[in-house]
Amino acid sequence: MNSILVLGGARSGKSCHAESLVMAEPAPWRYVATGRAWDDEMRARIAFHRARRGEGWEAVEAPFDLVSSLHGSQPVLVDCLTLWLTNLILDERNIEEATESLLDALRQRSALTVLVGNEVGLGIVPENALARRFRDEAGLLHQKIAREARRVLFVAAGCALEMK
Amino acid sequence: MNSILVLGGARSGKSCHAESLVMAEPAPWRYVATGRAWDDEMRARIAFHRARRGEGWEAVEAPFDLVSSLHGSQPVLVDCLTLWLTNLILDERNIEEATESLLDALRQRSALTVLVGNEVGLGIVPENALARRFRDEAGLLHQKIAREARRVLFVAAGCALEMK
Amino acid sequence: MNSILVLGGARSGKSCHAESLVMAEPAPWRYVATGRAWDDEMRARIAFHRARRGEGWEAVEAPFDLVSSLHGSQPVLVDCLTLWLTNLILDERNIEEATESLLDALRQRSALTVLVGNEVGLGIVPENALARRFRDEAGLLHQKIAREARRVLFVAAGCALEMK
Repeated sequence: MNSILVLGGARSGKSCHAESLVMAEPAPWRYVATGRAWDDEMRARIAFHRARRGEGWEAVEAPFDLVSSLHGSQPVLVDCLTLWLTNLILDERNIEEATESLLDALRQRSALTVLVGNEVGLGIVPENALARRFRDEAGLLHQKIAREARRVLFVAAGCALEMK
Repeated sequence: MNSILVLGGARSGKSCHAESLVMAEPAPWRYVATGRAWDDEMRARIAFHRARRGEGWEAVEAPFDLVSSLHGSQPVLVDCLTLWLTNLILDERNIEEATESLLDALRQRSALTVLVGNEVGLGIVPENALARRFRDEAGLLHQKIAREARRVLFVAAGCALEMK
Repeated sequence: MNSILVLGGARSGKSCHAESLVMAEPAPWRYVATGRAWDDEMRARIAFHRARRGEGWEAVEAPFDLVSSLHGSQPVLVDCLTLWLTNLILDERNIEEATESLLDALRQRSALTVLVGNEVGLGIVPENALARRFRDEAGLLHQKIAREARRVLFVAAGCALEMK
């Protein structure tokens, strides 16, 4: 599976590092945004990320259907798995099925796919049951992708550590 | 001290990795469960972990008394330090004494002991004072074991990083 | 920039590791404390850290003005960026300006500066907006320092991992 999983915390520089991995391939590149701009804070975050990327990027929004966004032979950046999972949970979709379809699509791509994920499991157990469920689902999703990815990176303070 | 400390976040694959380290030694292996099934969510987690392990495992429950579970020359998996510490705190036991007894028992074992711990100190400072105390105690416990362990691993997304 | 950034979670042993890096240089060393003793818990933490350090240390308190504490040719330990940032936010100072001044001062030092920071972005998104802002500012600050630092370490359970 020609995929790289980039894990990191909030404002760890993981998206920026993931972009540099995609841009090491020849343009054009596809940016797959999974976040939905449901409030001002989220809109500010999306604008912040968009402003950083330059020419050569085709942008696609995929809050639910990641599979369609993976067609063709362009290098793809999926930013990020965490918001995609949030959307699936809030919309009460079947996460196991969605994950299997994603894995199938990743296996069939020969071009590079870089997937960004927030590591959210390294704090105190959340009091909120939905947060606990989200944390579990995120951990399982990352494990499934990491198992087949050809590289897994952990980013902190903009520095990347090779995990696999 | 023939011990390996395996740290990681929630659903990081740390227990699974720790199991594989124990199973690299000849069977039979002892699985020391520190969690108590006080609610349905916890029962589901315990069942989930039990289902994954196969033949060759002897299971022991040790919510408080880890020392007794470490007798003999079998390779042992302690899963996990975090629930053990939770039990000690909720039962108002002396943590420093319990830790010293555990360290003594680990020093006296010649067989492999793999200990799993949740890294919980990498989020925002919890508002809850008990959570802050727990986070401090967990960090100190991990440091004390890591100082004498022959290996310390950090697991994320099922991938293990050698810390020591 | 002759600086080392030491990142880690709560009670990860990061301060202790940072101290050993400074003490590898010839004494006297300067300890720059950014924390303010605003409650008993905080006072206990400060006393705990002070008790561990021995002779050869000059102690300076710098809740806001880190730049003045960096004068001269002594090796300096800044402990920690996280409390400094907390002070700036609570006092509504301009964080971008303060960061630029800090970076300038670090660039001008030829002696070693070791800066300790709490990694706080690896848990669930906090419900509290101030905590989310703090988490973002901390991540950006660490990235800016890491970009120019000659080494970046990640500490867990007292073990240090070379990130850069």
